[in-house]
Amino acid sequence: MKIGFIGLGNMGAPMVENLLKAGHAVCAFDINASALAQANACGASVESSPKALAACSDCIITALPSPRHVRQVYLADDGILAGAAKDACLVDCSTIDPDTARELVSAAAKNGQRMADAPISGGSLGAKAGTLTFMVGAEADLFSRLEPVLKCMGANVVRCGGPGSGQAVKICNNLLLAISMTGTSEVMALGVKLGLDPAILAQVINTSSGRCFSSDTYNPWPGVSPDAPASHGYTPGATAEIMLKDITLALDAARQVKQPAMLGGITEQLYHMLISRGLGSKDLSSIIKLYADV
Amino acid sequence: MKIGFIGLGNMGAPMVENLLKAGHAVCAFDINASALAQANACGASVESSPKALAACSDCIITALPSPRHVRQVYLADDGILAGAAKDACLVDCSTIDPDTARELVSAAAKNGQRMADAPISGGSLGAKAGTLTFMVGAEADLFSRLEPVLKCMGANVVRCGGPGSGQAVKICNNLLLAISMTGTSEVMALGVKLGLDPAILAQVINTSSGRCFSSDTYNPWPGVSPDAPASHGYTPGATAEIMLKDITLALDAARQVKQPAMLGGITEQLYHMLISRGLGSKDLSSIIKLYADV
Repeated sequence: MKIGFIGLGNMGAPMVENLLKAGHAVCAFDINASALAQANACGASVESSPKALAACSDCIITALPSPRHVRQVYLADDGILAGAAKDACLVDCSTIDPDTARELVSAAAKNGQRMADAPISGGSLGAKAGTLTFMVGAEADLFSRLEPVLKCMGANVVRCGGPGSGQAVKICNNLLLAISMTGTSEVMALGVKLGLDPAILAQVINTSSGRCFSSDTYNPWPGVSPDAPASHGYTPGATAEIMLKDITLALDAARQVKQPAMLGGITEQLYHMLISRGLGSKDLSSIIKLYADV
Repeated sequence: MKIGFIGLGNMGAPMVENLLKAGHAVCAFDINASALAQANACGASVESSPKALAACSDCIITALPSPRHVRQVYLADDGILAGAAKDACLVDCSTIDPDTARELVSAAAKNGQRMADAPISGGSLGAKAGTLTFMVGAEADLFSRLEPVLKCMGANVVRCGGPGSGQAVKICNNLLLAISMTGTSEVMALGVKLGLDPAILAQVINTSSGRCFSSDTYNPWPGVSPDAPASHGYTPGATAEIMLKDITLALDAARQVKQPAMLGGITEQLYHMLISRGLGSKDLSSIIKLYADV
């Protein structure tokens, strides 16, 4: 299968390498010339626009920063939909809102093209290791065609439902991550202020009803999870900026369906507060800096 | 060792049975005459007051509903401190505030009595099975004396630090449970409103960064965790009333040390809202009823 890949960032670049390793022919595009040269050096061919790339690919994968970039790359005059063949498969791995995802699926369908949303979890380390989770929103037959391609880049490829459902699952998971990371920060800071040893506090929580990914794997208190960003100066990982972007997508989706999200709303404000203090490029676990001098 | 046990509720009654099974002589007291008769039928002797019970026990264990009850049972004229021998060991397994816990330890010390705080997690099922976790605040030598007794009733006996530290760990854990249960409720309700299958949403969260006890073991959406209260009409488990009591203890402790707890504060208000709607005696996971008609 000839695969076109657009978006060679922290996630996209290692994903392309894993597709090449699996024996696929890959054609790449990015507006960043040095990222494109790097992909070329790894064995990918390159194209000069999304439209040109789409015209010579059976399957086109995108991994882009935000809904604005995704719209541009799919819908512009030199975009994917203008170039792709009638039976091409399109897969957007960016994290965007479910509404935009469904709108693009409809626009593609008008051209006879099939499109899926397949946002990712697992970070850049998972992208390198090929252990990503893909949350796929697609009709069942399209999912069957895409699954083997996505398996070249990830360990878990889960069909979440029809178009848009991959994005919906992703933003729900990430909103819960933001809430539980902030909650873990509150109680770690409270416990230390009450005189507790943070390692003992985390140890008990991790075998009790408060346990979560943010307490047992990615603890925000320095030194508690040796491999977590908190133990390495809050070097990301995933930045607070990206966390806020995902929270905003979730709250926008909640607004559309008139669904309350009290803790989500407060968590959004706390991440705004963190970023307004100049910490947007630190890891998302640096939210604990609102609660303790760490 | 002759053990005195005060407080034969959902937790205390099965704890007494496990002490008896382990071969200890147990003397019991409760203001509820039928609970006392039940303990007597299981093989415990009974006494007519905390003072009388303390006078004939080497180790006195209490499991009571709130700080008010604990103060009364320890400090009243017919209370434990008035009756216990100079070298008696006192252990309070109630969940109360760390300040009251430390105050009682000091009052006991004035009489030459040694006291530990040892709140419990694991619920009434854990109490029956003898799989409780005890979070113990005590000096190291006292902990060594108490550990074999507590092991008769629990699987994990953890020393958290000096006096009051068991209570501090317990209220931190339970505040995080309240926040993550409410957060899980928000995202489960949001996901379903966005058209997702709740089982698939939980499945992906549980292998991703949003996973927590409230999503993977005690999910608030009916049917997702087959053994959880949500799948059985929200029959507790632990009630919303008890959850609010624990949140209040944590926030009172935070206030004392001037520590902010934004999500904790909002979660307290949400549990107030739930209870004001008449749902206080339902399981704590019924907080999802603020977000969805389940």
